[in-house]
Amino acid sequence: MAGSMWERCGRREHRESGSEVPGQRCPRAVRRWSVVALLLVLIFTLLAVPVHAAGGEEGEGTAFAQVFLWIAVLLVAARVAGLVERVRQPPVLGELAVGIVLGNLSLLGIHTFEPLREDAIMRFLAELGVVILLFQIGLESNVHTMRQVGLRALGVALIGVVVPFALGTLVVGPLLLTDASFKTSLFLGAALTATSVGITARVFRDLNYLHHQEAQIVLGAAVIDDVLGLIILAVVSAVVSTGAVDLITVGRITVEAFLFLAGAIVIGQALAPSLSQLFSRIHTGTGMKFTLAISFCLVFAYLAQAIGLAPIVGAFAAGLVLDPVHFRHFADPEIVAEIKAVSRDAPPTLRAHLDHIVAGHVDRHVEDLIEPVGFLLVPLFFVMTGMGVRLDALFTPSTLLLALAITTIAFIGKVVAGVAARPANPWIVGWGMAPRGEVGLIFAAIGRSLGVISEGLFSVIIIMVILTTLLSPPILAFLIRKEQPVAQPAS
Amino acid sequence: MAGSMWERCGRREHRESGSEVPGQRCPRAVRRWSVVALLLVLIFTLLAVPVHAAGGEEGEGTAFAQVFLWIAVLLVAARVAGLVERVRQPPVLGELAVGIVLGNLSLLGIHTFEPLREDAIMRFLAELGVVILLFQIGLESNVHTMRQVGLRALGVALIGVVVPFALGTLVVGPLLLTDASFKTSLFLGAALTATSVGITARVFRDLNYLHHQEAQIVLGAAVIDDVLGLIILAVVSAVVSTGAVDLITVGRITVEAFLFLAGAIVIGQALAPSLSQLFSRIHTGTGMKFTLAISFCLVFAYLAQAIGLAPIVGAFAAGLVLDPVHFRHFADPEIVAEIKAVSRDAPPTLRAHLDHIVAGHVDRHVEDLIEPVGFLLVPLFFVMTGMGVRLDALFTPSTLLLALAITTIAFIGKVVAGVAARPANPWIVGWGMAPRGEVGLIFAAIGRSLGVISEGLFSVIIIMVILTTLLSPPILAFLIRKEQPVAQPAS
Repeated sequence: MAGSMWERCGRREHRESGSEVPGQRCPRAVRRWSVVALLLVLIFTLLAVPVHAAGGEEGEGTAFAQVFLWIAVLLVAARVAGLVERVRQPPVLGELAVGIVLGNLSLLGIHTFEPLREDAIMRFLAELGVVILLFQIGLESNVHTMRQVGLRALGVALIGVVVPFALGTLVVGPLLLTDASFKTSLFLGAALTATSVGITARVFRDLNYLHHQEAQIVLGAAVIDDVLGLIILAVVSAVVSTGAVDLITVGRITVEAFLFLAGAIVIGQALAPSLSQLFSRIHTGTGMKFTLAISFCLVFAYLAQAIGLAPIVGAFAAGLVLDPVHFRHFADPEIVAEIKAVSRDAPPTLRAHLDHIVAGHVDRHVEDLIEPVGFLLVPLFFVMTGMGVRLDALFTPSTLLLALAITTIAFIGKVVAGVAARPANPWIVGWGMAPRGEVGLIFAAIGRSLGVISEGLFSVIIIMVILTTLLSPPILAFLIRKEQPVAQPAS
Repeated sequence: MAGSMWERCGRREHRESGSEVPGQRCPRAVRRWSVVALLLVLIFTLLAVPVHAAGGEEGEGTAFAQVFLWIAVLLVAARVAGLVERVRQPPVLGELAVGIVLGNLSLLGIHTFEPLREDAIMRFLAELGVVILLFQIGLESNVHTMRQVGLRALGVALIGVVVPFALGTLVVGPLLLTDASFKTSLFLGAALTATSVGITARVFRDLNYLHHQEAQIVLGAAVIDDVLGLIILAVVSAVVSTGAVDLITVGRITVEAFLFLAGAIVIGQALAPSLSQLFSRIHTGTGMKFTLAISFCLVFAYLAQAIGLAPIVGAFAAGLVLDPVHFRHFADPEIVAEIKAVSRDAPPTLRAHLDHIVAGHVDRHVEDLIEPVGFLLVPLFFVMTGMGVRLDALFTPSTLLLALAITTIAFIGKVVAGVAARPANPWIVGWGMAPRGEVGLIFAAIGRSLGVISEGLFSVIIIMVILTTLLSPPILAFLIRKEQPVAQPAS
């Protein structure tokens, strides 16, 4: 809607209030692209300029300034890549593609972005980005809907973990990896289990589809899936490194994971109203609201890590807990009442806008406050994920063949799991579960560090992650648009 | 205004729309404080719990989760310390005090927060916080007002650099540091020059005073002051480390610094409208606006560092460049016009609210988008600055005496500089220039690393930084309230 507003540049400028400069001309295409060229030249010049130190603290000051520049470059590149939205593709695809391009420029002799890949601060910001994303998704998800789809989500998760694990361990490993041990097959199977919910959730959000039951099933199943995947990883790691499975440890991890999610939601729901009322007494305003929300998210992410789960599981639980209802105390009821009074007698267009404003003040303010932090950090995660892809590891025939076989297994394992989602659309659920991402990459890295995953198999797992990540969003978008032809990208 | 709204908890709840749960009781004081107690117990338990690794990537995952928890603890502590607002003190004082307490808990045998002090990620986030703060302040500052006060700002800056440098080098050094070399005196003088504009700017903002000419003079002078201070530091470092001053280098740094600020503003003002129109064509919406603004800020911060200035100088320049006028294209003029039409016939209270909404949509949206990022990062900077204070270095009589003498010199040097601000209030300008902060601490650290500042003198400089930082805000708040007795904290 707002997207079409400025397709003719400056078209409506003269209708703006007196503050607009009337003489400002609409820039011509030449002028426009000269600005782009100038910007690109500027950025690449900057990347080539060595940074001086600002009077001492040499290393740290220089490193920090370098990170400032990297963030700016990645954010602008990610936004420009958002152009894929014009061809009805989710922006996240563009961000991943930018990452793959930047991450493989070294193949063309450009090594500018190599240090970025290993920089601890950039990796932290990307990790914080995916935590913020899952928090936002948790805020937008609804516990009641999740409960309604709970059993089906459990079914989807179980099938989607068991089938790829079994196929990877019992079929692909013995048949295609003839020179590999059973331990290697076990690890390959484990690496096929965990759905990367971030990418799917982003597609659902881009297409305004989050509130459908298919999306809720996928989100619920992906959380269970993550828990199951991490349990499998823990077990497989124990088998590989010690040769024996400690049943008590496995039991403890399983119980902890389920208690964490259930406990977080129950205790959080009970505690949040008191907390928000308490804090509204201490210090009102948006600053307090933001601090309370983000601290909740970070503490839950920490707790998840502390009991051995991925931080994103905690962030998602925090988002579920902080249902917007607990923040309604912060809205100014007098203003809301007055705007509502005006809205009743207003013409329809204005009424819609006023209702939107009221909704913004009453319901959605927490999401709106978190959103800019997401703008800053979430694209960093997706570009950095794309940068993890090494194209040069790809191009040998046997590697490509093995990769295609394993990718096929990866797709089949998840798509069949969609059956458990009936009467919801099983294809949307199945393809929604298909992307593997950061968790698959982590599994591969651990396997390599334990010595059971070779360099070649590592490349293969990475290709599987890439293909499931790149192919699922367009297929998913196609399926969703087939179901509801009027679906538009969210603004 | 909103601060008094909820002083009686739940008082207005029944006036809210039907979405409120009517049975929710007003919590009693006992229940309230039991929640606080529970929260504190929870946080301190968390800090004591060792973090397990989430299935591999041991070090990094654990370190990142630890940072998540630290951020949450610091943000909540900073907000609670914001209670000093109740006794009419700027919240930044509370944040510094929290930092000093957390940073010196090790004196009581609690070493929980010691690793935080040296953590590279936390230091980066704090640095990004002060960059964002100066960007916000630049956005709120007005180039025209700055130009009007330009000459006076230059006068204030020059006097405020020359007087403390001369007093430190020629009086305090030779008289009180009898066993120290002239090089030490030079360094002590240099450490007294640079105003820490962040703290003063925050006080001005907290008291809604940023748009007065005194505030503009201080902000302008502090930028010049930072440039002058860094030139002095470069020169003094060169003298100390090589024994000779390279006039070409000094000239180059000077010219670069002035060209940077002037060039940034001129080129930026010329380029920004084209850029924002270009980007509004590529991808409209708040996400683009945010990305453009924050990338501008980060690139300018990088450029400042690249030519040897502090990144905050660049961020401030970026804020000046991105005057909100360039973002008015993004507002939806139809909605604004409709709301304005309603506003004309509305009762006064509602009209004020609607005008505020219009202002929010037309003028202040960039600041509003940056604000949550500020909520996340700016308090980290002030708490971390407070944590830099080591109380145990303070308590020997000779150290205290020397510290008091140098602090007195530090105050005199800046307060006399206020004279150049006439006819503006010279006391507000003079005391506004008095706080030394991160730059002073950096100077001290460099001097120590070069071997000309002893451990004792290092403590003394730190005490000077603390006292100027802690004493200036309340004195400044007192002077501002004397000038305009109705001044209220900004919401």
